[in-house]
Amino acid sequence: MSTSTAVPAPLAITMGDPAGIGPEIVVKAFRDSPDLVRGAFVAGDVGCMRRAASILAGPGAPALPVAVIDEVSQAWSVPAGCVPVLQVVDAVPDLALGQVSAAAGRAAGDAVTWAARAAMAGDISAIVTAPLHKEALSAAGFDFPGHTELLQSEAARHLGRSVDDVPVRMMLANDELRTVLVSIHVSLRSAIDAVTFDGVLQTLRITHEALSRALGRAPRIAVAGLNPHAGEGGLFGSEEQAIIAPAIDAAVGEGIAASGPYAPDTVFMRARKGEFDAVIAMYHDQGLIPVKYLGVEKGVNVTLGLPLVRTSPDHGTAFDLAGTGRADAASLLEAIRVARALVRAA
Amino acid sequence: MSTSTAVPAPLAITMGDPAGIGPEIVVKAFRDSPDLVRGAFVAGDVGCMRRAASILAGPGAPALPVAVIDEVSQAWSVPAGCVPVLQVVDAVPDLALGQVSAAAGRAAGDAVTWAARAAMAGDISAIVTAPLHKEALSAAGFDFPGHTELLQSEAARHLGRSVDDVPVRMMLANDELRTVLVSIHVSLRSAIDAVTFDGVLQTLRITHEALSRALGRAPRIAVAGLNPHAGEGGLFGSEEQAIIAPAIDAAVGEGIAASGPYAPDTVFMRARKGEFDAVIAMYHDQGLIPVKYLGVEKGVNVTLGLPLVRTSPDHGTAFDLAGTGRADAASLLEAIRVARALVRAA
Repeated sequence: MSTSTAVPAPLAITMGDPAGIGPEIVVKAFRDSPDLVRGAFVAGDVGCMRRAASILAGPGAPALPVAVIDEVSQAWSVPAGCVPVLQVVDAVPDLALGQVSAAAGRAAGDAVTWAARAAMAGDISAIVTAPLHKEALSAAGFDFPGHTELLQSEAARHLGRSVDDVPVRMMLANDELRTVLVSIHVSLRSAIDAVTFDGVLQTLRITHEALSRALGRAPRIAVAGLNPHAGEGGLFGSEEQAIIAPAIDAAVGEGIAASGPYAPDTVFMRARKGEFDAVIAMYHDQGLIPVKYLGVEKGVNVTLGLPLVRTSPDHGTAFDLAGTGRADAASLLEAIRVARALVRAA
Repeated sequence: MSTSTAVPAPLAITMGDPAGIGPEIVVKAFRDSPDLVRGAFVAGDVGCMRRAASILAGPGAPALPVAVIDEVSQAWSVPAGCVPVLQVVDAVPDLALGQVSAAAGRAAGDAVTWAARAAMAGDISAIVTAPLHKEALSAAGFDFPGHTELLQSEAARHLGRSVDDVPVRMMLANDELRTVLVSIHVSLRSAIDAVTFDGVLQTLRITHEALSRALGRAPRIAVAGLNPHAGEGGLFGSEEQAIIAPAIDAAVGEGIAASGPYAPDTVFMRARKGEFDAVIAMYHDQGLIPVKYLGVEKGVNVTLGLPLVRTSPDHGTAFDLAGTGRADAASLLEAIRVARALVRAA
């Protein structure tokens, strides 16, 4: 834990795909929430960030100043009301907003790679990632569907392990609810197959470790069932009895405050009311439907299991909004807030 | 539609399993919401209702009076502050609260059977069912897991059709959201198998017909996908392209205002914000997680597809609360309110 006199390492915000809304919401964050972003800087491309500042200012109006910094530590010296940018990628050529391009994908991916290495070297305290575009990333030759896999690969390299030995999980959180997913972007049929003893137990371990640090105590973790009514004693499916309950028992044996499996249709409501600190969801939509139900503006995505703190807003590049200045920065601001809290707790 | 001068047919509230909280929440409804329950009566057992009234009054205090009526039409003549009860079942012997018994199951099932026939004969305007207990029903020799199947069987008999020719669907509704489920109490694996062209189209037809009557216009019906991101163009599952989209197209061809398939994790939030009148959920928890997320107190279950109006509170017999007087009548009150609205619209 950093003492109150030491200046903590700056927080990096990767600019995301420069053809999307990323640069604009980042500028909005620096414009509208100067206190929250003190000591943060943009890891990306100076030209892209200047363009975003101009878009937000509107024609003829003075844009928010972009302050070019040469090294990470200068982030703390930039005055409030400026956008500190560290050029961590090759200069990005002019590109059309709202369109997939290899150039945009390369800049976005390179910025994340830089930030991952800087975080593991201890130069930055956390990474908040603005959204990137899967197809653009692929067009640039990155062999990863998204941030999570890219970060996982960098972590494995850093730790000298295989990627499979760096298991990560996606946590979605808002003011009311934290949910950690056993699987994410697979079909519902495949998600059922992914509900294994090891998969559930690993999810419990990762959640316990990450939230113990964040909360300063063992988190109370509820595990959702897979089937309606958690199978109603085996009447509608056997996964609860055969897989989920044994994994919970094993976790409890390791000192993890896990319980369940609970009926999926009420466990999230119970967590919202304060009975649990987090809910393990057996598949993507089981966890994301409740987190997003009250509005996506406040949802934050946290990658658990990595040797670094990484959060992101819970939305995509929104190519249809890029260049309009209308994209909402609320989820990005929440992501910055959550990252700061995780850093303080670490 | 009934004119304002005619007295509408009374509404029947079946008392539910008398060993559960049903009789108590029914008495609470008559005690606390006299305006809402005007013209309603309890279809059940006088003795059970008297006992519930005593429980709520507490020892030594005067209980809410039970007014025994001899025929349905007298429900309108009972003064506010009394509980009108029509004895529609054999007198129930003394039974232990909170315990499964054949006697309780028989009384609960007989009351529902009576109400179904009375509704289809036009003697009552609607049925609101207090919760019954599956095991008690079974112990009494009823071959139905719950209300829905019992009512479906009675409707089939009345219409001279097979049960399969009276397709019904469960709709869950609260102030913010209506969701209609393609399947209910089956394992998640079986629920995926139940996502068929006919099943989705039938759900759309039933929803369109029921809500057209209730809203006085064609409802805007969103159809959720089955897989994360509605399959992301076939990347995580093919059911959206092979089954759900064709069923939506067929429904649109019949004049139904259906659209989708939408990403499951945001479609309920969009409906909550007013973009749709109802969401078709592909499986139990997809629809029930959002409906219950803000609290189960206000959830109402409506059976669509029957030749009668039937609603119920969205909770069970709560045997652990029976006899304490602490059960919450809010969901029952909502069920009465929704039944009245459906009757007015019919």
